[in-house]
This record gives sequence, C-alpha cells and structure tokens, in this order.
Amino acid sequence: MQASSTDKIEPTSGPTSATLPASRRPDPAEVPGLRWGVLGAGWIAGQMIRSLGSTRQQVVAVGSREQARAADLATTYGVPQARAHGSYEALVADPEVEAVYVATPHSEHLAHARLALAAGKHVLVEKAFARDAAQARELAGLVRESGLCCMEAMWSRFLPHTDVVRQAVASGLLGEVSTVLADHGQPLWPGGPRRLADPELAGGAMLDLGVYPLSFAAMVLGGIEEVVGLATPTDLGVDARVAFAVRGPSGALGSLSTDMSARTPTRATVCGTAARLELDGDFYTPTTVRLVAPDGDVLDELPADPDEQHLGLRHEACEVALRVRAGETESPLMPLAESVRLMEHMDTLLAPLRR
Amino acid sequence: MQASSTDKIEPTSGPTSATLPASRRPDPAEVPGLRWGVLGAGWIAGQMIRSLGSTRQQVVAVGSREQARAADLATTYGVPQARAHGSYEALVADPEVEAVYVATPHSEHLAHARLALAAGKHVLVEKAFARDAAQARELAGLVRESGLCCMEAMWSRFLPHTDVVRQAVASGLLGEVSTVLADHGQPLWPGGPRRLADPELAGGAMLDLGVYPLSFAAMVLGGIEEVVGLATPTDLGVDARVAFAVRGPSGALGSLSTDMSARTPTRATVCGTAARLELDGDFYTPTTVRLVAPDGDVLDELPADPDEQHLGLRHEACEVALRVRAGETESPLMPLAESVRLMEHMDTLLAPLRR
Repeated sequence: MQASSTDKIEPTSGPTSATLPASRRPDPAEVPGLRWGVLGAGWIAGQMIRSLGSTRQQVVAVGSREQARAADLATTYGVPQARAHGSYEALVADPEVEAVYVATPHSEHLAHARLALAAGKHVLVEKAFARDAAQARELAGLVRESGLCCMEAMWSRFLPHTDVVRQAVASGLLGEVSTVLADHGQPLWPGGPRRLADPELAGGAMLDLGVYPLSFAAMVLGGIEEVVGLATPTDLGVDARVAFAVRGPSGALGSLSTDMSARTPTRATVCGTAARLELDGDFYTPTTVRLVAPDGDVLDELPADPDEQHLGLRHEACEVALRVRAGETESPLMPLAESVRLMEHMDTLLAPLRR
Repeated sequence: MQASSTDKIEPTSGPTSATLPASRRPDPAEVPGLRWGVLGAGWIAGQMIRSLGSTRQQVVAVGSREQARAADLATTYGVPQARAHGSYEALVADPEVEAVYVATPHSEHLAHARLALAAGKHVLVEKAFARDAAQARELAGLVRESGLCCMEAMWSRFLPHTDVVRQAVASGLLGEVSTVLADHGQPLWPGGPRRLADPELAGGAMLDLGVYPLSFAAMVLGGIEEVVGLATPTDLGVDARVAFAVRGPSGALGSLSTDMSARTPTRATVCGTAARLELDGDFYTPTTVRLVAPDGDVLDELPADPDEQHLGLRHEACEVALRVRAGETESPLMPLAESVRLMEHMDTLLAPLRR
C-alpha cells in the first residue's frame, strides 16, 4: 500500500460552451380562458387576480366570509365587475364559475376544495395541497370520483424558467445530476400572519415555504425516495425551521432547508457531473437561471423579467385552463399523486413535532 | 376562527447600515517560528511548505517513504536546505524538528501522529483528524498523556475572514443565528486520487470535503447536538456524497452537503434574524464575506485577497507556534474535544455505509 500523502487533482474541466434551451411554456395571452371564482380574500388571492389581468382567464366572482371583503378584493385588484359573494357556498354555487381557486389557509383546503368539487367546479388548490397526507389522499380520491380537474397551485412548476431547468436536466446538459441545493427562508415569525404561528391553521415554515425546495428537488431528482431532517418548534409547536436531506431514485441527494424566522438567500442549485444550474433568489418566482461550468465560468444566462414577479401566478391558472380544455383531470407537471407524495414527505419531517 | 385567507407580510426590514468587524488574527510574519518537519510528500504537503515561505516558520525536514520524493518536494516548494528523510521514523527522530505536520491520508493520521508524539514532537494533523471517532479519541488521549501540543489542521478556522465571521455572530450583528447553509463539492471521483475511492485509506467525500461544512456549522452554531443525513455510496462503498442536517444548542439548524462527484458552489451562509453573512465559494479558503440585510442590500463587504488562496494554510501552522510558545497544548479555536466530536458526527452519518 502506497499510503504516501494527500493528493489533489484540479477539477475536471467541463464544457467550455453550452447554451440553455428556450422555454416551451405557452404564452398566457394565448391560452383559452376559463371563468374563475376566487375562494378567499387574502394576499395571495389578490396577487392571483392581478396576474390574470394579462391573460384570457376571467375572474367572474370572489367569495369571502364577509361580502365587503370580497368586494374590496375585486375592486383593489382590477376586477370590479366580478360578483362578490359573502360565503364560500354562494361562490361555488355561482353558475358563471367554471373553476375555483382555493386561497384559504392549508387547514381549510380539503373542506373548500370538496365544496367546489361538489358544486361541479374544477379546482386549483393553493399549496401546500392540504394540512397532511391523510387529507391530501382524501382530496385526491374526491377528485378522481368527480371527473373534474384539480391541481395543486405549485406555481413554480409552471414558470418559464422552470421549463428550462427541466429540459437542461433531461437533456444531459448537466451530466448526471448529483446534488441539489435549495433554501427558502423569510422572516415571517414572530410578528407575521397569525395563521403561520397557529397549529390549528396548519402553521409553520414547512407547509408555507419549505414546500418549494421540496417540490423543486422532487422535480429535478425525478422523485424523492427517502427524506430525513431536523425541525425546531416555535412556542406553539409548529415548525420554525426545518433542515432536511432527500434522496432521488438515482442516488442523487438534495440538501434543503426552510425557515420562517430569518431571511435566507432562497437560491437553488442543481449540480451535475458536467455543469450546474444556479437559480438566483427567489428561485421559486420568475428568476435568473445561470449555466455554470465546474471551473465557475458562466456558460449561459437566462435573465429574469424584473416586472414579472407574482404575475407568474398566471401560468398555473393557464395550466388548469389547458387541461380542462383538453378534457384532462390532472396536469402531468403537478399530478395529484405528486402532491400526495410531497405531503407524505412533509408529514415524515414534521412527525417529531406532532407527537 | 377567522380562517379567511392566505396572508403575507413584507420581510421585516433589517439594519440599513452596519459594518463588519476587523480580523484579529495575528500577522503570520510576526508569529515566532517553530522548526517544522513535514511528514508526507503529497499535494497538501507542498502547499503547506509554500505557504510557510511568507512566515517565520521554518521547514527544516521533509519525510516520505522514498527519500527522492521528499527531496523533490523540498526543492519544488522552495526549501532545498530542508533535510530529506526516506522514512517517517527518521523524520520524527530528526533532533532539529520541533513540530511535525502530518500530511498522509486520514487512515494513517493516528499512526503517524503517535510516531511524532512518541518522539517528543508537537503535531499538526491534517483534517479529518483520524479515520473515525475511536481513533480520534485514542489520539486525543495520547496527546494529553504527552503534554505536547496537538491540533487538527482545520485551516479554515484560523483564516482572517473566519475571525470576522466569529465576531459577527458573537456580537449579535446578525441577530439570532437561525439557519446555516454550506456545501462542498468537487469533481474528484471517479477519476481522481485513488485514496478518495479506497475504503482502506478512509476514502469518501465526507472526511475530505464534508468536514469543512460540518466544522463551519459547529463553529457558528456553538456546537452540534444532533445530526441526521443521507449518504450515497460509490462502487467500493465509500460515500460519494452526503446531504445532512445539524442542530445547535439554541435550536438553530444547518443544512449541509458534500459531494466528490460534482462541483457545487461551495458557499456558506449564516442567516440570522437581523441579517446574514454570505461567504463566496470556496468558503473554506480565504474568500469574500458579505453582510446582507433581509431585503438583499449588501451592507458591508470584506473582499478576498486573490493571491492568498492556499497561502492561507500558514495561519494554522502559526496557531500551533503561538500555542507552543505560550506553553499550551491545544488551541481554543480547534480543541481536541471538538475534533473528536466532529469525527463522532461523521461516524453517525457514515454508519449506514459501514455496516
């Protein structure tokens, strides 16, 4: 045995030139319109309504527990003609509504999606899909019985830059994917929305923020087969932060984290044996994607549109419209089984806090 | 219960101005010299010799299993006057040598450090400290019996920028530390040095590369109390990559990874409730440190010296010299107990592959 010394080699040189593919996502202005009802009147509901202004999707109704709040939302975000309903029941019963966007807290997703399905409406359910995997499975079952279309509103999966990431991975541009890094931290606790602190409302960092790095890793790894992590509770017992590791079917790993008590860079990186993709913060919104060689050279860059930001929500609504017009009940980009699996992984990570 | 909708608040605004502290690390040119013997003749041995050229530390001898190799190393790296020994036994017996730098593979650290201690020499042991925690504990015991000074060569801990990080954390400049992110991936397998692929030589990503993010997290978290992760083996059963999570005593978490099959950004970020520190890749070498507000504004920046790179190895040798001149047997910046604890954590993470 020649146990002589510590050796070192220079990093393998990667490609010296390569280009990112173009996005294949449809132009939102050309996707046939659905008539939408928005269920819930909070921040994300407003952002969604605003984003649909640049599309053929029409918001025909808004429903809240207080009619004044629904009316305010419609006016504030540019759809004063939309009917303002004072109950969720009235919203889903509105005969003009074809599809319902459920924008209430995670704890209410199952109940409100059930309401919409029972009224014969297609449903886009805000992420996380439900409060836990049992609820997610129940909801998936209701959808399958209904024959209606339902999708988790994991908006990142439908953004143009995400299609570039998917193609880069599938084409072998990165070589073999080996490690995925993604973090999502925002200072939303303490001092933020009550629902994030409240166990009753399925609060905590994971369902609100951590679902993004988890979903991203599942997408680029081609699924997640194993997950382990550590979660630190708040005073009320929801997760203030979670650091976690995941394994994909090929043996590639993800190193992921979420934190609702501090701002983290909220970057994502897909590292392959030939090159890596770096997504600037916030990686789950319309952002800049960079193809980087092992030696650090930037081979290509797809810049973010600085104006797009939360307008990016329109892409997920357009996906539902496309599926409905095609007579399909799920999206291959975010199938129900995937939503259920992600909830199972989150249950695994949060189990120590729920005991 | 007002379960109305998904709310959102804007991130808490952090400090609008703040400055990074200055490093307190001593100037290597002013640290009293020791007479060093270098045990091993590989890449890292050469880098260490070169780094000491700018200090008062003297390399008086080099030892390898082949005298010609030792002589080559001394000539190549600018110490042709150093004696070239054809065995490690001859090196440690050299009466001119006061301290030995052990630069052989992890699998040999215990044996070679024992040799040096038995000869009455102080020892700087290349990281990882040993091949496992049992060996690390044995070595720590030998050191304590000897009354000599011994330190793991975790060079990052002695770099000037690291002292800035330590002060920023201790002073509360970041608020409360919440999440630490660090990755270290280099494409060194397959096709790299044989020792990294060889289980006999304690190969794998963790002991060579992963020890850096682990050590970094332990430093900024004030210790590590819990560790979980996933490791993917190579064909010969060492770890190709590991994704892992750690928890510090305050409940802050680290999301960490290592990979010897792909280049990762090799960045580190310390996220606090008031601000974060971002260390550019390669974070474990002399690098740029940035103080960043929650809104992304860069509040202050400590730029890297582009010429320093592996010259940074000199700081750890100077630390040993300072401890020896002070009559101390350990460094408070990298005490033996810390080296043992880090090996215990690595054992925990690698246990599934060693079964």
